[in-house]
Amino acid sequence: MTGSTALLTDHYELTMLQAALAAGTAERRCVFELFSRSLPDGRRYGVLAGVGRALEALESFRFEEESLAALDGVVDDRTLSWLASYRFSGDVRGYAEGETYFPGSPLLQVESSFAEAVLLETLLLSIYNHDSAIAAAASRMTRAAGERPCIEMGSRRTHEEAAVAAARAAYVAGFEATSNLAARQRWGVPSTGTSAHSFTLLHDSEADAFRAQVDSLGVGTTLLVDTYDVAEAVRLGVEVAGPGLGAVRLDSGDLAVLAHQVRAQLDSLGAQETRIVVTSDLDEYAIAALAAAPVDGYGVGTQLVTGSGHPTCGMVYKLVAREDRHGDLEPVAKRSSKKASFGGRKWAQRRIGADGWAEAEVVGTGEAPAPGADSRDLLVDLVRGGEVVGREPLAQARERHHASREELPLAAQSLGRGRPVLPTERVDAAAPARG
Amino acid sequence: MTGSTALLTDHYELTMLQAALAAGTAERRCVFELFSRSLPDGRRYGVLAGVGRALEALESFRFEEESLAALDGVVDDRTLSWLASYRFSGDVRGYAEGETYFPGSPLLQVESSFAEAVLLETLLLSIYNHDSAIAAAASRMTRAAGERPCIEMGSRRTHEEAAVAAARAAYVAGFEATSNLAARQRWGVPSTGTSAHSFTLLHDSEADAFRAQVDSLGVGTTLLVDTYDVAEAVRLGVEVAGPGLGAVRLDSGDLAVLAHQVRAQLDSLGAQETRIVVTSDLDEYAIAALAAAPVDGYGVGTQLVTGSGHPTCGMVYKLVAREDRHGDLEPVAKRSSKKASFGGRKWAQRRIGADGWAEAEVVGTGEAPAPGADSRDLLVDLVRGGEVVGREPLAQARERHHASREELPLAAQSLGRGRPVLPTERVDAAAPARG
Repeated sequence: MTGSTALLTDHYELTMLQAALAAGTAERRCVFELFSRSLPDGRRYGVLAGVGRALEALESFRFEEESLAALDGVVDDRTLSWLASYRFSGDVRGYAEGETYFPGSPLLQVESSFAEAVLLETLLLSIYNHDSAIAAAASRMTRAAGERPCIEMGSRRTHEEAAVAAARAAYVAGFEATSNLAARQRWGVPSTGTSAHSFTLLHDSEADAFRAQVDSLGVGTTLLVDTYDVAEAVRLGVEVAGPGLGAVRLDSGDLAVLAHQVRAQLDSLGAQETRIVVTSDLDEYAIAALAAAPVDGYGVGTQLVTGSGHPTCGMVYKLVAREDRHGDLEPVAKRSSKKASFGGRKWAQRRIGADGWAEAEVVGTGEAPAPGADSRDLLVDLVRGGEVVGREPLAQARERHHASREELPLAAQSLGRGRPVLPTERVDAAAPARG
Repeated sequence: MTGSTALLTDHYELTMLQAALAAGTAERRCVFELFSRSLPDGRRYGVLAGVGRALEALESFRFEEESLAALDGVVDDRTLSWLASYRFSGDVRGYAEGETYFPGSPLLQVESSFAEAVLLETLLLSIYNHDSAIAAAASRMTRAAGERPCIEMGSRRTHEEAAVAAARAAYVAGFEATSNLAARQRWGVPSTGTSAHSFTLLHDSEADAFRAQVDSLGVGTTLLVDTYDVAEAVRLGVEVAGPGLGAVRLDSGDLAVLAHQVRAQLDSLGAQETRIVVTSDLDEYAIAALAAAPVDGYGVGTQLVTGSGHPTCGMVYKLVAREDRHGDLEPVAKRSSKKASFGGRKWAQRRIGADGWAEAEVVGTGEAPAPGADSRDLLVDLVRGGEVVGREPLAQARERHHASREELPLAAQSLGRGRPVLPTERVDAAAPARG
């Protein structure tokens, strides 16, 4: 991401700012929380991703001249001049990247003046909702794949920048690599790829194409074998590359049947070490269905980048507490209808049973109990006084996801629809929420 | 979009380039086509969007030093030096933005050397697949809304850059405005918005909040009336703003029931001109269901930016013809399995009946018939010799979509699942496809 992120924002955030500046309420200290009321229908756990991207976006949230010019007609001059010197100076705490989460988990807490915090609503939600939707789908896929590697190759089926974020989120949730070169450049995600059908069609014969590929990319390359006839292409591939051929890729047809046939053929040709990679319209169910087939890796595209049926999370960003006229932080919450929420700043812990399995997501207001052997704190510092303190290598988020998923009850392994595998327990402080 | 777009690309495009450069086939003249084999399940027509974005992205497709450094380990030095001077120098023709389309419509044709064209695959597909998915959903929504305006407000539920593209695509397909400020800045889409629940909760009372908003934004503003009690808020809103209050917004509850109640209340308070805007989890079906309710505008979020169940299109980018060893363009196509395609460069016309309604999408190879009163050509020049010639104001795409949709048979108005409203007729030239 280059340039300012300040206009990746909804119009109403700026009109609220204008009205609050005029009313003298813009500087009231506030706590906003980002959370999800529920998981997507049938999902057993959520996976938080996007934290590192959000921290980068926060640092680029500046209204330079070009942005201010675009706001002509949106807000008044007083607001424009306030925006010109905008720097987030508050605190942010939240779940660390890769962590699993549940309904009501306080994934992010932004504490600052109303003015500073309200402007971040859309950008933070966009990043968290998108990246976490991809990570949740990716986590189900890597679990279904077991020890076999999953490769992300869905860039072409989503917005070109969403593709980069999707590759990153999939990596957090256990994918081995991506086809996306910008994810390699920006985030160090390993990238991979060899050839498409167009490469075979470009040449006068499949043999010419395979020779060109093996000559240039080496015998360890992956040959795409379903442009014409699969059995003939496999025979030809081993003839051209020798039994040391790295892999063959199947991108169409009945993958289970083809994998068995191709494995037998490769073995009979002495290419016992040649791997079989499959890549056609896979999702977690198709991956699970191929568990018994001799497949060595899965390339996943559309279903990964569209969240396997759930392309977004339902995360919201709500004001949960604000300074009253005496200067005290007072819990607040909307109270009409089913969208009512739970006021006050939260703490969050995961309770762990004696057997080492997680038992509950415990979310409370007021003083948090000290974490002990039977629980761990979930909130970490991300930004202090406007300075980002929560940056970490992506590999750390990836390890965290693995550990957090391993700790969940076995039902988390089920691809079937069901309730969240952990209950969210609420511990309310004495003070009732206002409103 | 700022900076280079060259790494928004799949790894394999560069390895194919390397192998083709080594084999001496990289400079073969090729035609790639971008098309969709089918519409998303049950959809009656497709809507093409993203053309203007694709043309911008093409102009920024340059491998500067930073990109080349990131490709260390991906391709060899010869390929890197070829990439350093990459400029697309070929021709692009395609459907104009906003046009409706059908299975097999040749939406984009890229003619150049293999090397130049293969690199564009991922980026072009990302833009077309994403933007057209949003536009297709938006078109159904604006049709369901009839004369009532639809406002796009889904930024928070999709990737932050996808949000900008979604606002743009929705505008092409008839939305009146967006909440997204970057879409205003980059594409001139009208933006709108006033306040959220947090603004009410920030203040000591709803009355304080409404006064602050009306004082700053004027009586023509839209007050959000469902933070506490809707009837009380409506009463208060008219008290504060007077009967000239611009609008009230309902963001939760049973919208049809509430709209009737609020309309009656507003009328009884003398606020007959105050509009009612609804914004809670709408899609085209919910919009249609509210047709009889006294609603003046729809704000649409999640379902718009996720394509209302179809977050991507199935568009692919295939080599359909390439220069043979005699220098002639020869049709080519993959021939294994159900993914087989139709070789050769296509022409496309929409056949129009005597009554003015479209009758068929006619797609052929070889010489196109001259368009007459009963048909119109669908392909326009977008890039000639590397120069973009197809740029147009966004308003033109919006008008084109309106006209193209109006021309479709009435079944296009149905929200029910069904077959595409136009058949795609194929007219093959004598020459058979190779392969």
